[in-house]
Amino acid sequence: MTEYEEKYMNWLDEVKYNEDGLVPAIAQDAETGKIMMFAWMNRESLQQTVEKNEVVYYSRSRQQLWHKGESSGHTQLLKEVRIDCDNDVILLMIEQVGGIACHTGRASCFFKRYADGEWQTVEDVLKSPEEIYGDQ
Amino acid sequence: MTEYEEKYMNWLDEVKYNEDGLVPAIAQDAETGKIMMFAWMNRESLQQTVEKNEVVYYSRSRQQLWHKGESSGHTQLLKEVRIDCDNDVILLMIEQVGGIACHTGRASCFFKRYADGEWQTVEDVLKSPEEIYGDQ
Repeated sequence: MTEYEEKYMNWLDEVKYNEDGLVPAIAQDAETGKIMMFAWMNRESLQQTVEKNEVVYYSRSRQQLWHKGESSGHTQLLKEVRIDCDNDVILLMIEQVGGIACHTGRASCFFKRYADGEWQTVEDVLKSPEEIYGDQ
Repeated sequence: MTEYEEKYMNWLDEVKYNEDGLVPAIAQDAETGKIMMFAWMNRESLQQTVEKNEVVYYSRSRQQLWHKGESSGHTQLLKEVRIDCDNDVILLMIEQVGGIACHTGRASCFFKRYADGEWQTVEDVLKSPEEIYGDQ
């Protein structure tokens, strides 16, 4: 390995993946600070995210890399990556292409707010899922 | 159960806890949008958080409820609770008492940024851990 490659591997190895080889990842709009979504990454997805400058998660249900936006077009352009004090949570500062991160067609996945004993939907659908995924 | 109690239980049961009975929780400063920390909650901690209006996590290492700030004084006052589209991630909008969430004495736990093949510390310690925890 060259010195560069060695250094390059180190930062990926400093991440503390869980017993499934995964680390939680929070995606935050770099401009507005809005939290867009939460998903999981493995070592390879984190590496690809930095290489592509676009966010690649790991889909636990499909058990494969998940290039966010591959079907919807709503990719996430990487602005900054952070890690927490315990090296076991990733924060992705992103630009959300199309302004929609959620599969429901809302900007953010966190569109339900607790009030009066229930979860109330407080954000609008910007584009219907049919419109987003309909051409597949 | 009264109608109120029944309703009150429902919102807690709508949360999809993982196989350990836990759900990831993101704490965001309600004013600035800064992401302060990430931790885990169980059903009881979520219930207590809403009842106390102060954040109570579940400590996986200590295997018990963790009233954030109980030793440091850096409690988190609850402003709003959100849940994501899959009902399996909690977003806590908070006011961080003392302005410090991290045990290292920094405002946020996400103080390391990826650059040039390494994680670089980009936020200052506001108060030393000795000063925060020294009177214990």
